[in-house]
Amino acid sequence: MSEFLSRRFSQMKPYVPGEQPQDMRYIKLNTNESPFPPSPKVLRAVNIDEVAKLQLYPDPENKSLVAQIADFYQLEPSQVMAANGSDEILGYAFMAFCDQQKGVCFPDISYGFYKVYAELFKINVLPIPVKDDLSINYRDYLNCGLTMVIANPNAPTGLCLPPEQIEEILKSNPHDLLILDEAYVDFGGTTCLPLLQKYSNLLIIRTFSKSRSLAGARIGYALSSAGIIEDLNKMKFSFSPYSINRLSLLAGVAAMEDKEYFEHCRQQIIMTREKTKASLLNMDFVVTNSCTNFLFAKHPRLTGQELYQKLKEKGILVRHFKQNKIDQYVRITVGTQEQMEKLLAALESILEVK
Amino acid sequence: MSEFLSRRFSQMKPYVPGEQPQDMRYIKLNTNESPFPPSPKVLRAVNIDEVAKLQLYPDPENKSLVAQIADFYQLEPSQVMAANGSDEILGYAFMAFCDQQKGVCFPDISYGFYKVYAELFKINVLPIPVKDDLSINYRDYLNCGLTMVIANPNAPTGLCLPPEQIEEILKSNPHDLLILDEAYVDFGGTTCLPLLQKYSNLLIIRTFSKSRSLAGARIGYALSSAGIIEDLNKMKFSFSPYSINRLSLLAGVAAMEDKEYFEHCRQQIIMTREKTKASLLNMDFVVTNSCTNFLFAKHPRLTGQELYQKLKEKGILVRHFKQNKIDQYVRITVGTQEQMEKLLAALESILEVK
Repeated sequence: MSEFLSRRFSQMKPYVPGEQPQDMRYIKLNTNESPFPPSPKVLRAVNIDEVAKLQLYPDPENKSLVAQIADFYQLEPSQVMAANGSDEILGYAFMAFCDQQKGVCFPDISYGFYKVYAELFKINVLPIPVKDDLSINYRDYLNCGLTMVIANPNAPTGLCLPPEQIEEILKSNPHDLLILDEAYVDFGGTTCLPLLQKYSNLLIIRTFSKSRSLAGARIGYALSSAGIIEDLNKMKFSFSPYSINRLSLLAGVAAMEDKEYFEHCRQQIIMTREKTKASLLNMDFVVTNSCTNFLFAKHPRLTGQELYQKLKEKGILVRHFKQNKIDQYVRITVGTQEQMEKLLAALESILEVK
Repeated sequence: MSEFLSRRFSQMKPYVPGEQPQDMRYIKLNTNESPFPPSPKVLRAVNIDEVAKLQLYPDPENKSLVAQIADFYQLEPSQVMAANGSDEILGYAFMAFCDQQKGVCFPDISYGFYKVYAELFKINVLPIPVKDDLSINYRDYLNCGLTMVIANPNAPTGLCLPPEQIEEILKSNPHDLLILDEAYVDFGGTTCLPLLQKYSNLLIIRTFSKSRSLAGARIGYALSSAGIIEDLNKMKFSFSPYSINRLSLLAGVAAMEDKEYFEHCRQQIIMTREKTKASLLNMDFVVTNSCTNFLFAKHPRLTGQELYQKLKEKGILVRHFKQNKIDQYVRITVGTQEQMEKLLAALESILEVK
């Protein structure tokens, strides 16, 4: 820390991303990347002719990508904005829709970045405890009078709320915004997209990092009313107008175009998840009912830390959160069938030698 | 604007980037892009095998790029950080090193984004008038007691201060940070990099968008003390940890490696600038003494707005700022020799028919 850092940040704890080892070949099941490469259309779109134009700025309005996303979801382009990863959009949303008067609430067990944004922008947080089974009780959010953030499906539990319950939350909070983080919705949750037509207090945030196999390109997007999208763009144009680079714009458009590949990948992941889950249950794991591309599991004979450590020793990275309520669990990204077989073999060996 | 936007932003005016027309082929001399494509090494580094790995997150610590930059400038890697464009780094710097107690000062004529950051983060600004010849009087910054931001060379004037004067500013403000924006320094200004060894209150911000021909890749970097770099990383990891995408990391490393191409391009631009400047002077333009990849010029017989408009009609885009003191000028990016010849021909025809 330098002597120049504003004192308001002296205690701030930044987000800690999952390990990204650059030195050794692990089976990486710790950051919920897709096991599948990007669509072949992406590989054609990001070509040498386009690399040769990198001296030019990208379109700061991301018109081509916004149009493609709007088309995919049958929305108006004015209802869509994109930025450099959904993290960036979440950051803009916390900045825009919370302040010292308007606090924020979110589940005490959720994406760890929410509390970092609140700390960064000095926003009061009301953490709302999840139930004993780690699920969210939607009644806790009725008439809450705060900006709300809910990941649906939730991370790292993998659990989802039905749109009917989200609708109740929207209905009871007409003057408060619900930021709905649908990063994982393509793997079996039900999107709340249709609720945009009925409720002006809904902001849906999505990402290309999971179901579109583009974590390395950094593309997130927001779907909402034209007014809320305008607010988010105001933030973007006041912080980083050219936030999506030229090549990622091309990659995003191509990935969105390839509906078939998208369907194929997400169905594969759902199938592999269910098969892996069945095997884990057979090995006496407790596994949540995940609607995502990861499994959240614990075992009666090993702590979460032990599971994480022993898998790492066998060359398999999973994610462990040292957090009350969930520290017995590990979060395991659903990889290829082959990777999952290696995971299961490793777990069998770990459990036997215990 | 939605009803949910925090009232503190209701009057905020975002940055307005230079026009990026997607529909027609202009000679674009309005956003200071390089007229040269990226280095051939970039074209080799960003290849289909790398595109095929875009399902994986980038390294959030940007180790390869940081190492390459540190090596180029003979600094420690702990003295370097990188992010998604220098705009993003400027944003982090305003957040980190200013607050409600510690205001900021910068020249009244400078990069238009500085005042947008101050507005975004509600930081008090002391604008310091430039002299009548548009140059910065370094004495105005001595013992100023505020965080200082100086673009050197300055934009859009193109003028630069010698390091000796920057040193005086640093010396007289030991407990205040000077953010030195060296976006354009490679085109003839003198870098203040050597001052990092002597002064702990200097933060230098640079970009790959101009002299490295990579505006479309979005890469900025900061050079400073390890403590200040740690502070900036704290901001980055609290807002957008994975801010540089995989392909831009590769492009950045390759561009930094190709010292020969970098030298060639910047020398070309300097030569073309001086040649164009001489022609403009012959046509009775007043032209500032630019150390950048643009020229800042006005003509006694035409307003800045007229110049901008008439050039646009002839298919040439330049930038005009509707701002007191400089609204008679246009800012003209130095393109290829051929583009400059077209510009001069267009200006000749405009001035004759006037």
